[in-house]
Amino acid sequence: MSHPASKPSSGSYPKGERRKADIVSVALELFAAQGYERTSMVQVAAACGISRAGLLHHFPTKEELLAAVLEERDRIDDARHFDHLDPGRPLEWLAGLVDLAAFNTTQPELVRLFAVLSAEASSPAHPAHDYFVQRYATTRDDYARTVAELVRQGLLAKGVEPEGLEAELIALTDGLQIQWLLDPSIDMPRLLRRRLQQLLSVRLPD
Amino acid sequence: MSHPASKPSSGSYPKGERRKADIVSVALELFAAQGYERTSMVQVAAACGISRAGLLHHFPTKEELLAAVLEERDRIDDARHFDHLDPGRPLEWLAGLVDLAAFNTTQPELVRLFAVLSAEASSPAHPAHDYFVQRYATTRDDYARTVAELVRQGLLAKGVEPEGLEAELIALTDGLQIQWLLDPSIDMPRLLRRRLQQLLSVRLPD
Repeated sequence: MSHPASKPSSGSYPKGERRKADIVSVALELFAAQGYERTSMVQVAAACGISRAGLLHHFPTKEELLAAVLEERDRIDDARHFDHLDPGRPLEWLAGLVDLAAFNTTQPELVRLFAVLSAEASSPAHPAHDYFVQRYATTRDDYARTVAELVRQGLLAKGVEPEGLEAELIALTDGLQIQWLLDPSIDMPRLLRRRLQQLLSVRLPD
Repeated sequence: MSHPASKPSSGSYPKGERRKADIVSVALELFAAQGYERTSMVQVAAACGISRAGLLHHFPTKEELLAAVLEERDRIDDARHFDHLDPGRPLEWLAGLVDLAAFNTTQPELVRLFAVLSAEASSPAHPAHDYFVQRYATTRDDYARTVAELVRQGLLAKGVEPEGLEAELIALTDGLQIQWLLDPSIDMPRLLRRRLQQLLSVRLPD
């Protein structure tokens, strides 16, 4: 999945964190290209040009590195699509979802990584379990807040029931990713926009 | 995912196929309980009470066993939820989707297996890639046929656009499974029924 996150993010790192940020960026590329399970810490260290011991100094376990990678992905998506948005303008937020879906079509490996991990991590023993549980709860809150704002501003189409919409729209986004991964002719942004437009009494901005 | 399959299925096996069917049944349980990657052919053989050589006689590779397990899962779902349905009665078919979603809440490990595999298998190198690509194409055809029948019988609510509905409904089902796996308080059958009911001009049968 890749939905907007609501937590605050900073675009720059304190000086001592620079190396850590480089490692996370390299690990994100490796995980996305070849999968989390098939990527070893030795490979990550080599790709960073540091020793395994040097890597373990920053990330004692692969699980901790994964957590940092997931948070970094959220930060990038948010910075690109949502951080500049005014919470009082829910239509722009919805249009941001369509933008994000369009952007995701440019990075199938990363979309696949998240789709696999979100399913695997539903197992309580998985190292990313807490991350994904928390992420989806937060995401549903964000969507619900947007839906509530649409209701408040009278922007929902007549007869549209707001209850449960947050879960429906998140499911639609996640499910379209699976179909698109298996068949790139599936037009994620168009199908998402189509459903969002049906919910509204006004035109969804481009 | 778990959607109805349209291919014909038989409820009984020819005599010589009995052992193969037993192996598939055992492997399905093991894959669902501990995942495909973490299950070895040696474990499957042991759980079947046969030697590894005996297992390899029936399934020369783990990939072939996986393919058979996926087909068996489809067969079970279809026999339970769809095979008895008349294609001319699309409302019953839609109600069958809700039944299947309700049934799936009783088997989280199997739902997780399918969710992980459908995402992993989107990688062209994955042994189940062709299966999932074909499965989703067939599934979209089935849904599209049901939607066309709803249109023909005048059962779609006013203003509902049939185009793209098949992809939307499959995505909704798949996406709700992810949320439910991560948070069992998410009510898959209710949320699916809610959306299906919105599409209809008549009441969706129980």
